[in-house]
Amino acid sequence: MANITVTAFQWVPPFAKGLVRDLRVRWALEECGLAYEERLIGPDDQGSEAYRRVQPFGQVPASEEDGLTLFESGAIVLHIANRSDTLMPADAAGRAHVSTWLFAALNSIEPPIQELAAIDLFYADQEWAKLRRPGAVEAVQTRLDQLAVRLDGSDYLVANRFTAADLMMTTVLRILRHTDLVTRMPKLDAYQKRCEARPALQQALAGQLAPFADAERRAVG
Amino acid sequence: MANITVTAFQWVPPFAKGLVRDLRVRWALEECGLAYEERLIGPDDQGSEAYRRVQPFGQVPASEEDGLTLFESGAIVLHIANRSDTLMPADAAGRAHVSTWLFAALNSIEPPIQELAAIDLFYADQEWAKLRRPGAVEAVQTRLDQLAVRLDGSDYLVANRFTAADLMMTTVLRILRHTDLVTRMPKLDAYQKRCEARPALQQALAGQLAPFADAERRAVG
Repeated sequence: MANITVTAFQWVPPFAKGLVRDLRVRWALEECGLAYEERLIGPDDQGSEAYRRVQPFGQVPASEEDGLTLFESGAIVLHIANRSDTLMPADAAGRAHVSTWLFAALNSIEPPIQELAAIDLFYADQEWAKLRRPGAVEAVQTRLDQLAVRLDGSDYLVANRFTAADLMMTTVLRILRHTDLVTRMPKLDAYQKRCEARPALQQALAGQLAPFADAERRAVG
Repeated sequence: MANITVTAFQWVPPFAKGLVRDLRVRWALEECGLAYEERLIGPDDQGSEAYRRVQPFGQVPASEEDGLTLFESGAIVLHIANRSDTLMPADAAGRAHVSTWLFAALNSIEPPIQELAAIDLFYADQEWAKLRRPGAVEAVQTRLDQLAVRLDGSDYLVANRFTAADLMMTTVLRILRHTDLVTRMPKLDAYQKRCEARPALQQALAGQLAPFADAERRAVG
């Protein structure tokens, strides 16, 4: 019986399919074998007072389990990871390192990547975006180079095994899929593909994409 | 005896004084009454292979305690907060809410604020920055409005008490000190001032600023 609920979008435009942040929570739950139900929301929900009480920014995901409501994909994934050693080593030092790299993915690596994605996907026709893009690419490249140094000789970020840190880092690198910034770096590309090949990610992706296909069928039918 | 070491900068330009991210860790340690030593680094250290093994991006802070090396201010503050109820409520739900708001500060609120700060402090004379600034301000304002809604009627983010979530949020809001975006919102302004009035922050600030004054005295002397 699923007693975990995760909010996700009813539909998103093609550029966002497979990138919406509920993917991170779905992936973590699938890795842990935890069943969940999705609560699909639309633009009206995002702006509603009721949903803002659950997720103050009107975004997804939010999660609910036994009356505990959380938001922020980083906090939810860490909360899921903390409950077992499926997504973390058992020792305290290893767990602290996973937390460190999970924060690194979200606070040191995602911001420049998200800035570049916004330039390319939201503002491409604006003059400032054209002028800023080279600098934004350079900022991303700096972080990717630093990440590649750390991964040199390791298949994963922490403890030579897949952890919540790799889960989060992979979802951050995926935001660059419209560029060749990762694919032209063989070690990073192999790292991303290694993590993305996991059955749990494939199930999580299918879970995110199914409602979008449903919505499109209904719109046509 | 201090067995905790925190890395910090020997000197930074005026715009960064009191904003460098080691402030977050110093503040958390001061709140908990944990003694620490600082390890001051300069530009040569930032680029060195030895320091990159400690902090892969060449940034501060990194922390070391009994052989455990961590980086990312979010991860270190959460690690400190997890060990007692000084910076978190004792109950599991309250602790999960603190983690949620700590991630919200770093992953939902800091990125647009940091984008605006970069425009104003690093790129102000560039054409793209002038064109982008109105949109960047709007993105910050959206998040501040949402935060103000959440704080309406509460002095703190979680459990009606100061927690690691408020510590982190305050350091994020401080990045806007060169603007009137926070000061013109009475509730947010009062929240920031309430948190900044804590003696532990004042001690942390003094700790960060002292080496900068030393470096300037040496440069003159």
